[in-house]
Amino acid sequence: MNADAKLKPVHAAQTLFPVEDGCLQVGGIPLTRLAQRVGSTPFYAYDRRLLTERVAHVRAHLPPAVELHFSMKANPMPALVQHMAHLVDGIDVASGGELKVALDTGMAPGRISFAGPGKSEAELTRAVAAGAVVHAESERELRTLARVGDALGIAPLLVLRINPDYELKGSGMRMGGGAKQFGIDAEDAPRLLALCAELGLTVLGFHIFSGSQSLKAEAIIEAQAQTFILAQQLSGQMRDPVRILNIGGGFGIPYFPGEAALDLGPIGDALAAALPGVKAALPEAQLSIELGRYLVGEAGVYVARVIDRKVSRGQVFLVTDGGLHHHLAASGNFGQVIRKNYPVAIGNRMNESNERETASVVGPLCTPLDLLAERMELPAVEVGDLVVVFQSGAYGRSASPQGFLSHPEAPEVLV
Amino acid sequence: MNADAKLKPVHAAQTLFPVEDGCLQVGGIPLTRLAQRVGSTPFYAYDRRLLTERVAHVRAHLPPAVELHFSMKANPMPALVQHMAHLVDGIDVASGGELKVALDTGMAPGRISFAGPGKSEAELTRAVAAGAVVHAESERELRTLARVGDALGIAPLLVLRINPDYELKGSGMRMGGGAKQFGIDAEDAPRLLALCAELGLTVLGFHIFSGSQSLKAEAIIEAQAQTFILAQQLSGQMRDPVRILNIGGGFGIPYFPGEAALDLGPIGDALAAALPGVKAALPEAQLSIELGRYLVGEAGVYVARVIDRKVSRGQVFLVTDGGLHHHLAASGNFGQVIRKNYPVAIGNRMNESNERETASVVGPLCTPLDLLAERMELPAVEVGDLVVVFQSGAYGRSASPQGFLSHPEAPEVLV
Repeated sequence: MNADAKLKPVHAAQTLFPVEDGCLQVGGIPLTRLAQRVGSTPFYAYDRRLLTERVAHVRAHLPPAVELHFSMKANPMPALVQHMAHLVDGIDVASGGELKVALDTGMAPGRISFAGPGKSEAELTRAVAAGAVVHAESERELRTLARVGDALGIAPLLVLRINPDYELKGSGMRMGGGAKQFGIDAEDAPRLLALCAELGLTVLGFHIFSGSQSLKAEAIIEAQAQTFILAQQLSGQMRDPVRILNIGGGFGIPYFPGEAALDLGPIGDALAAALPGVKAALPEAQLSIELGRYLVGEAGVYVARVIDRKVSRGQVFLVTDGGLHHHLAASGNFGQVIRKNYPVAIGNRMNESNERETASVVGPLCTPLDLLAERMELPAVEVGDLVVVFQSGAYGRSASPQGFLSHPEAPEVLV
Repeated sequence: MNADAKLKPVHAAQTLFPVEDGCLQVGGIPLTRLAQRVGSTPFYAYDRRLLTERVAHVRAHLPPAVELHFSMKANPMPALVQHMAHLVDGIDVASGGELKVALDTGMAPGRISFAGPGKSEAELTRAVAAGAVVHAESERELRTLARVGDALGIAPLLVLRINPDYELKGSGMRMGGGAKQFGIDAEDAPRLLALCAELGLTVLGFHIFSGSQSLKAEAIIEAQAQTFILAQQLSGQMRDPVRILNIGGGFGIPYFPGEAALDLGPIGDALAAALPGVKAALPEAQLSIELGRYLVGEAGVYVARVIDRKVSRGQVFLVTDGGLHHHLAASGNFGQVIRKNYPVAIGNRMNESNERETASVVGPLCTPLDLLAERMELPAVEVGDLVVVFQSGAYGRSASPQGFLSHPEAPEVLV
């Protein structure tokens, strides 16, 4: 390795999944055996132990007074949501379809919250009938909720989702600040709180979400501090006490070379320091944070089998049976401006340090977009080897165009 | 309109779908009525007449000796493929799943060709058993074909897919030239032709594909000229005469402001001029071009309903029940480096020239990626209006992550 190569950013080491006899273990099962159990490749596998440990890790850092919700849009696999339901205090859903899966877990309906900028009347009806908490995001939704509540004879449970006038700095996705389709502009909240009073709707509190996928503890701490200030300002406009305050999430995971894991220590410390003040100002408020990707993203792998090894004009291509139709994000085509490699390994050759080569991992699709790894250093492979894409537990399968080119869908297992 | 605005690139006028009484007509049906017939929004609608007319348009420009194939990966809807099967000379498939749909149309198996860089042994077996023409893309595939043919007692029909040493200039997707996972490097063809002889495989000819989605006739003409030269060079290595020569496709359609339709006139003229020479050099070769997007892309629309109109910090957002989960490409997240708007209109307000406003069209998903139109000038809308995304007949529904956030899938109709 020359000096230049040493300076090149590299992926954070993948240490969550143990290796035995050179084979990656997922859910305590050697990957080669798991592939036989699934019966086909490609597939997604999620590790129960890692999910449980990640929730415990978050709880160890958050003050006990802050509830932890799972944002299931990150991974809606029913068995996984069921597993998470036993570990967290609430589930956040983003559609009527997700609401159904969340309710089926047995989570108390009042601990299920429904956010999203375009909730249909049918979805709002289902949420009110279920007794879930609706995060209302527009005047139209408030009027619909009042009408639906009257028709059902059920008082809707609702909070206002607020589009703050700041954003989570350096986040992968900015979802607050500026003009947005999400939530109610903070400055418009007084008018809509007055409308709620007029419509006979009781507002339970606020959901203030400023961004997601941040790897900077200071940025998250700053956004949370601003969130508390905004919540206290908004509470002054409330007829009733603030009972629910969802301060969003934003915790990121490292995907790309040069990125490092988020340090929860300072975030927990800052929250603990802020809590007495928040408690004094909003004595009846139950605080919660919602995390999706952070809870499940690192617990999952995508596994595909090498079906061909081609050398074209000096470059090695490992052709696999999996690709962007199953894992769009890893191909660099889901919201990435510049394509970067996810961490990738050969699951049945984890110990091999000699015989390495630079290769691109591609899928079976007739498009140059179908690229799972571009010119990575990997062990020399044989047809039949298993390519593993790490960090695939969130926004993987469900965020991919599975029907593209009519290849089989990828099964998921929770092990 | 000021001088600046006049200079800004605009979308080509959308004139394929007629307008009556201010309402877009798809398949001769007013869009509002079609939405009632479908029974829900969003949906995709494809117009039979436009498909038929587009095939006729291509045939009017191509020399009669050149066959026209439909590349069904652009739109695999079975009813649409059935319609196309009656109009074209062959169907190109990209997976075992597509092969099944193509065979179900009744197209003669020998007129179905199967290309793709990662064909599994199971897929190759199905293709040989069906009697389809396999476009072999690697040494491994050739060896598998020979084994499969022996096992089935059927001589595989095959051509070699060639990765040329040039590319289609200015194409949206480069699929030839340089190091690629597609096909066999042109310079490696002699070795693999010798291998075919050794394996007892008869090679019927070549498939030479240099790129797709080009709007420049000159670039296509140049690539076709190079393709003919390469085919003649390769034929010198053949034991048998070249019987099949698929020269690829590459015809693009205009999506974005400033783009204009491809002019087929010069392409047809250049082909007609080249044919006598090709015929002399390859007297038994049946020429074909394969087109996907060009045949179906402009015949389809994606239709979503406005369910909310929000103003956030001065910007208007039309929130619809459709979004990137149904139409990833229109959201700018499918292989586009810079997001640009597809042509979008309000289908039930096609004549309204007054009361226009600048608005962004967004979907119901909790992500800022869910954007169907960014700050476009549109008629002022009401909740319930129908947003139409044109140029949606290719790589729309099948190239989208329909499971994302567990919203309902979009039905398709062929009218």
